[in-house]
Amino acid sequence: MASDEFDIIRRHFSRPELAFAVPGVPLAIGDDCALLQPSPGFELAVSMDMLVEGVHFLADCDPFQLGQRTLLVNLSDLAAMGARPLCFTLAVSLPRSDEHWLARFSAGLAKVAAAHQCPLVGGDLTASAPAVAGRAGPLCLCVQVHGEVPVGAALRRSGARVGDAICVTGTLGDAAAGLRVLRDGTWPELTGPLREALVQAFHTPQSRVLAGMALRGLASAAIDLSDGLASDLEHILKASGVGAWVDVDELPLSEALCAAAAPEQRPALALGGGDDYELCFTVPLQQLQAVQTVLAALGTPVRRIGEIVAGSGLQWRRSGTTMALKVRGYNHFGNAGEPT
Amino acid sequence: MASDEFDIIRRHFSRPELAFAVPGVPLAIGDDCALLQPSPGFELAVSMDMLVEGVHFLADCDPFQLGQRTLLVNLSDLAAMGARPLCFTLAVSLPRSDEHWLARFSAGLAKVAAAHQCPLVGGDLTASAPAVAGRAGPLCLCVQVHGEVPVGAALRRSGARVGDAICVTGTLGDAAAGLRVLRDGTWPELTGPLREALVQAFHTPQSRVLAGMALRGLASAAIDLSDGLASDLEHILKASGVGAWVDVDELPLSEALCAAAAPEQRPALALGGGDDYELCFTVPLQQLQAVQTVLAALGTPVRRIGEIVAGSGLQWRRSGTTMALKVRGYNHFGNAGEPT
Repeated sequence: MASDEFDIIRRHFSRPELAFAVPGVPLAIGDDCALLQPSPGFELAVSMDMLVEGVHFLADCDPFQLGQRTLLVNLSDLAAMGARPLCFTLAVSLPRSDEHWLARFSAGLAKVAAAHQCPLVGGDLTASAPAVAGRAGPLCLCVQVHGEVPVGAALRRSGARVGDAICVTGTLGDAAAGLRVLRDGTWPELTGPLREALVQAFHTPQSRVLAGMALRGLASAAIDLSDGLASDLEHILKASGVGAWVDVDELPLSEALCAAAAPEQRPALALGGGDDYELCFTVPLQQLQAVQTVLAALGTPVRRIGEIVAGSGLQWRRSGTTMALKVRGYNHFGNAGEPT
Repeated sequence: MASDEFDIIRRHFSRPELAFAVPGVPLAIGDDCALLQPSPGFELAVSMDMLVEGVHFLADCDPFQLGQRTLLVNLSDLAAMGARPLCFTLAVSLPRSDEHWLARFSAGLAKVAAAHQCPLVGGDLTASAPAVAGRAGPLCLCVQVHGEVPVGAALRRSGARVGDAICVTGTLGDAAAGLRVLRDGTWPELTGPLREALVQAFHTPQSRVLAGMALRGLASAAIDLSDGLASDLEHILKASGVGAWVDVDELPLSEALCAAAAPEQRPALALGGGDDYELCFTVPLQQLQAVQTVLAALGTPVRRIGEIVAGSGLQWRRSGTTMALKVRGYNHFGNAGEPT
């Protein structure tokens, strides 16, 4: 523990690869506040997430991957609003000052920050243990992302209307399967690129930022899938005052997931596993073709999986008929965190 | 643990006393992001702080007082920039779902939010322990405050110039003394209103928001005193490329501090104790009278304690002569957190 907090900030967090200058941020790290100035005609979209060791990530995980994931899962919230990333703030409660860990963690952050032109502009660094005595608490990370979106153009959860198609980007359940591989050693027979695809889906989710921006003016509502489709789609339904059906046979599943999980395991992973960070959105039918065109141009896979209907609640269908399927998303305090 | 995270948010965090509507926040709790829209011609000042149980507050502290303090110490960063509070976000990593604790904590937040017209607009709630098994981590709180300041008018650390007077608001060392009373039982002979004054200085710091706004266009640099004057004034000196002297006999000390601490204990408390959340600012001499007038109108005590000089570093003086005084502010990872 040779270095103090200001040294750590200087060496690992305010370095130019991570804390680079961008338009819209006249003042960044180094004062009591950062100053942000959204472009004229734009609103600022902000979202905050806290990640706790042992709850959101494994204690022995690779710090570079953790750095990447910490920022990616937050960018996913900007994607869900159709906002362009501007910058982020970061608070870290650190059990110990470990130079190697800090360098790797900040390199992971910097890689994603550069890819999305979203620099670190401020935050807080604190010890997770009392200075005098006491047991250190877990590593705790809190990120707030800031993005720009034209006034009135943000994709909200409340805009879904009866008759809209329900779509998702990418494939579902891979990250949940990847977590089982990493944490529980599930599917030991799965090796090579298929295993790696699942593990990477957990470590480095996509963050569909460009897709979200492309959906402005086309999608009627959107959310990012952090707790699992079953739980997250319900948020759109409640906010919009509508119901929906989803065809389980239409859920987009990867080759890797199908290789790992037996058919009867797949719905629970795809619907309740969480950590997908794909977008779920609704779209009026007359815009569906335009959506497919713009997402194809970005190389973003998209699948139509259901429809918004009058009423409330979510129905699962298979081969055109309603089926009973109990799926729960991840809920802190509410359940054991496993889909049923 | 009867309630899930969405219930907890609804009952304790999205209630109207805490999450009320204000101009400049078109969308608050309930979507992937909140939307903020600073007034035309204004920048957004943002600051993030993380508070960890056992490090920044005592594990058995009163949740109402903790709620107040959590927001107040963040508002102090807006005060130091001269920004008007707009709204805040909050992430909580919670060891257990305790209804009484949550109700009291959110009531404390709501009291300060109402007083400063600074509502909660978003955030995150997570368990501090794995859902399946494992030891709960400490309570961890992360707040980001957002304020408005006219473009170019923010008080920065970098504006101090040779010849400027150095001033502080309020009195120094009371919060540090209050923490010793609470945590260590120091000065057991101190009772009644004097003891209470020190304890309250720790629990409910002032947050000099109106004073900070009044200093726009008058002060040349400002910072809020979180780690202690010795440490925090150094940030102004480094950012401005100047030195300073401070007259130890001019430090504003409260009646309560003088009653509790012997004369030789007072400088360490006033200079290195931390948690004052008063403003330290520099002001050109020709503006000094105007500063005294506007702060008097607000009822904010202010004391001139020193002067900016050429060079670098901070000199302590007493009766006009330089004195040796070793004082260190609180530094995570750097020292034992006690002034020497």
